[in-house]
Amino acid sequence: MEKVQKFITEGKERFVQELFDLLRIPSVSADPAYANDVRRTAEFLAEKMNDAGLDQVEIHETPGHPIVFGEKMVDEKLPTVLVYGHYDVQPPDPLDLWESGPFEPVIKKTAIHPEGAIYARGACDDKGQMYMHLKAFEAMNTAGNIPVNLKFMIEGEEEVGSVNLGDFCKKYKDKLACDVVLLSDTSVIANDVPSITVGLRGLSYIEVEVVGANRDLHSGVYGGAVANPINILSKMIASLQDENNKITIPGFYDDVEELSKEERTAMNQAPFNLEQYKASLEIDDVLGESGYTTLERTSIRPTLDVNGIWGGYIGEGAKTVLPSKANAKISMRLVPNQHPDKITKLFKDYFESIAPLGVRVKVEPHHGGFPAVTPTNTAEYKAAEKAMETTYGKTPIPQRSGGSIPIVSLFEEVFGVKSVLMGFGLNSDDIHSPNEHYGLFNYYKGIETIPYFFKYYAELKK
Amino acid sequence: MEKVQKFITEGKERFVQELFDLLRIPSVSADPAYANDVRRTAEFLAEKMNDAGLDQVEIHETPGHPIVFGEKMVDEKLPTVLVYGHYDVQPPDPLDLWESGPFEPVIKKTAIHPEGAIYARGACDDKGQMYMHLKAFEAMNTAGNIPVNLKFMIEGEEEVGSVNLGDFCKKYKDKLACDVVLLSDTSVIANDVPSITVGLRGLSYIEVEVVGANRDLHSGVYGGAVANPINILSKMIASLQDENNKITIPGFYDDVEELSKEERTAMNQAPFNLEQYKASLEIDDVLGESGYTTLERTSIRPTLDVNGIWGGYIGEGAKTVLPSKANAKISMRLVPNQHPDKITKLFKDYFESIAPLGVRVKVEPHHGGFPAVTPTNTAEYKAAEKAMETTYGKTPIPQRSGGSIPIVSLFEEVFGVKSVLMGFGLNSDDIHSPNEHYGLFNYYKGIETIPYFFKYYAELKK
Repeated sequence: MEKVQKFITEGKERFVQELFDLLRIPSVSADPAYANDVRRTAEFLAEKMNDAGLDQVEIHETPGHPIVFGEKMVDEKLPTVLVYGHYDVQPPDPLDLWESGPFEPVIKKTAIHPEGAIYARGACDDKGQMYMHLKAFEAMNTAGNIPVNLKFMIEGEEEVGSVNLGDFCKKYKDKLACDVVLLSDTSVIANDVPSITVGLRGLSYIEVEVVGANRDLHSGVYGGAVANPINILSKMIASLQDENNKITIPGFYDDVEELSKEERTAMNQAPFNLEQYKASLEIDDVLGESGYTTLERTSIRPTLDVNGIWGGYIGEGAKTVLPSKANAKISMRLVPNQHPDKITKLFKDYFESIAPLGVRVKVEPHHGGFPAVTPTNTAEYKAAEKAMETTYGKTPIPQRSGGSIPIVSLFEEVFGVKSVLMGFGLNSDDIHSPNEHYGLFNYYKGIETIPYFFKYYAELKK
Repeated sequence: MEKVQKFITEGKERFVQELFDLLRIPSVSADPAYANDVRRTAEFLAEKMNDAGLDQVEIHETPGHPIVFGEKMVDEKLPTVLVYGHYDVQPPDPLDLWESGPFEPVIKKTAIHPEGAIYARGACDDKGQMYMHLKAFEAMNTAGNIPVNLKFMIEGEEEVGSVNLGDFCKKYKDKLACDVVLLSDTSVIANDVPSITVGLRGLSYIEVEVVGANRDLHSGVYGGAVANPINILSKMIASLQDENNKITIPGFYDDVEELSKEERTAMNQAPFNLEQYKASLEIDDVLGESGYTTLERTSIRPTLDVNGIWGGYIGEGAKTVLPSKANAKISMRLVPNQHPDKITKLFKDYFESIAPLGVRVKVEPHHGGFPAVTPTNTAEYKAAEKAMETTYGKTPIPQRSGGSIPIVSLFEEVFGVKSVLMGFGLNSDDIHSPNEHYGLFNYYKGIETIPYFFKYYAELKK
């Protein structure tokens, strides 16, 4: 391992430059305008995989964006680890809030990152975290020290719901066969408080449209007599939650896993400072479901958020229009035992039922994903724990995350294996937001820690 | 009058071509990007005023868009009529719903307009209706038959609240002195049911912003714990109206003029077919304040409509963002005795009071206007009535309109005179909407009727 770590120490500057090149390609999967850039990113990645020494490197076509594969089969008696990651990124909007170009990576020092952080869309989610694995592999390969068989599967549609990954996994089930999946697409609690994610929320993402009259109308001539789709949509959204911020969709909480008092007490002992949290967001108070703490609201409780809304005149100045329609994008985070398809249907039925006469409602599901909980008594969890202990000097805390990585349950279903969510980001990295960044500390720490995971995993599986 | 009408009959084709030229200039006053086009429109109009034979034609600068003035003083013993109109137009959005370019006028035949209608932004509101007055004047001037003194004041900011007209009127009070103001910016009930507008609603137009955290957040990491400005704005909008569609702002109805049972019975006898109304809008039901008919809801009752809303991700696909802010444009139509400034303040106080902890709210008034009611026993009303009787062969019905023309109360305040709202459009003309149009029948009928107004007004004032 000495040779591996020496290679990493000496390669740091180059690893950052290569990541910069990767970040410069705007691989926004949600917007068809970027389709060519997404493909260029896959090609860039395939080239770097070859350079790093992976075999069988291939760009697999899908009905959407391609999946990049590569492997290093050392010995069939060794356990096999499938590294998953994604090279696509969220749209950079709103652009005017970025302090530097979203696709022009720069390093800036901050209070949290005194040694500097890389600012760019995808710096943390997930180009930075995914690329750590390739550089860790390169270090092991150069040092001639690869204790496991390795497969890389890097997709380009995570940010649009991994819509083609399921079919790909099923089609290439044998080629992708593995003992465990390893991925870095989550966070640690803080740079001095390492943690491993053991729970993820599921997701149901829906787009709705409320249509009134067949055309935009003059609000003076028709206002007050004809349904205004914006007023109606607002009312319908308002009625999705009650005064305690509980979701009112009938049946929504039926399958929600309720934690014991002990479990809740334990999770609330994780380091968390409410005043710091509020100060960092510049809010005078938090707001969420009554009866739960902020840590609980963002991990063990399901939520409903409007992610986008639009309708009527949104330009400069005033226009007295009574618009023909209004739209919203609405997503729900789900917790263990909630089924995304069931929740989507409950939403649709309820939303349609509360529409008044005078409007028509369209409800279109975007994508969903299952919630997941990972056991902590497995070889893979213990290997990750030991690897972080080695590089951080502290035992990582098992932690439930509020985000969703729907593919974790997909891997369990298709490959019959668990995933290890060994992420190195911070919640303050502004992923999905303007000024996304990823600490150099975190990037290097990930590259250093990953080889230890393989070492300990191989030892524990012996 | 024979010579006047002969000139009009022979000039019809040219009058349409000139209006086409006027409609081709996109004089959108709300959007600074069109500022040069607004100015070009003022210059075009000044040229046409000179051509028509008006004197003292001048483009007056204001802090915003210019006001065009011209006059014909025949004899100081004759009464003076000030013709008011506006050459600015509403923004053409949403562009994709226009069947032909908003600034590329074309004539199309429809069921309501078998002889054709001019399709373009401003065709009816107000370029078409305003230009009728200039062509009517040209006809009288050519025929050497001008029975009154005439002044034209055509502004470029009506669609943004006539923000500089008040100061202009006060500054040039003597130059603009008149016995009555005549304007065409309203509708008749139908082409075979002439009417004169005797009531207008006032307006309070407000823009609101709800701000949560200091940046866009990942809805998985923060969702459920931090206020979502879109959810909050929706709730706040929803709480502006109750289940009977009554406005809940405390004090909102305090000054509303309540009509007697007899007045309400009379106004509900105006020709109106609810089934036709619903069919033309393709809605399964109307929706408005309980206890009032559609005719009442759109004339004697105040209303509240959201004219625009936006927040979060509104592009293609899905983005799991918890946005930093959400915005809406909200306007209220007011009825006699409601004061726009008072209503704006009531709105602001209430809206701020219902904001929960965790968000900050900004309320910014755009513009307002007073409601107005015109008496029907004046020389000017009788002159308009008689003029329409002459050209339509039917006595026009006095009618309250749902729209707002705030300058009517301004003229009363500054000049101490009433206005005559002799409009020739139809409610179905789609003003403020895509595919705005104005019937050729209506355009010609206006040009023919206006000279009779001057004739009868001069006679009645003798």
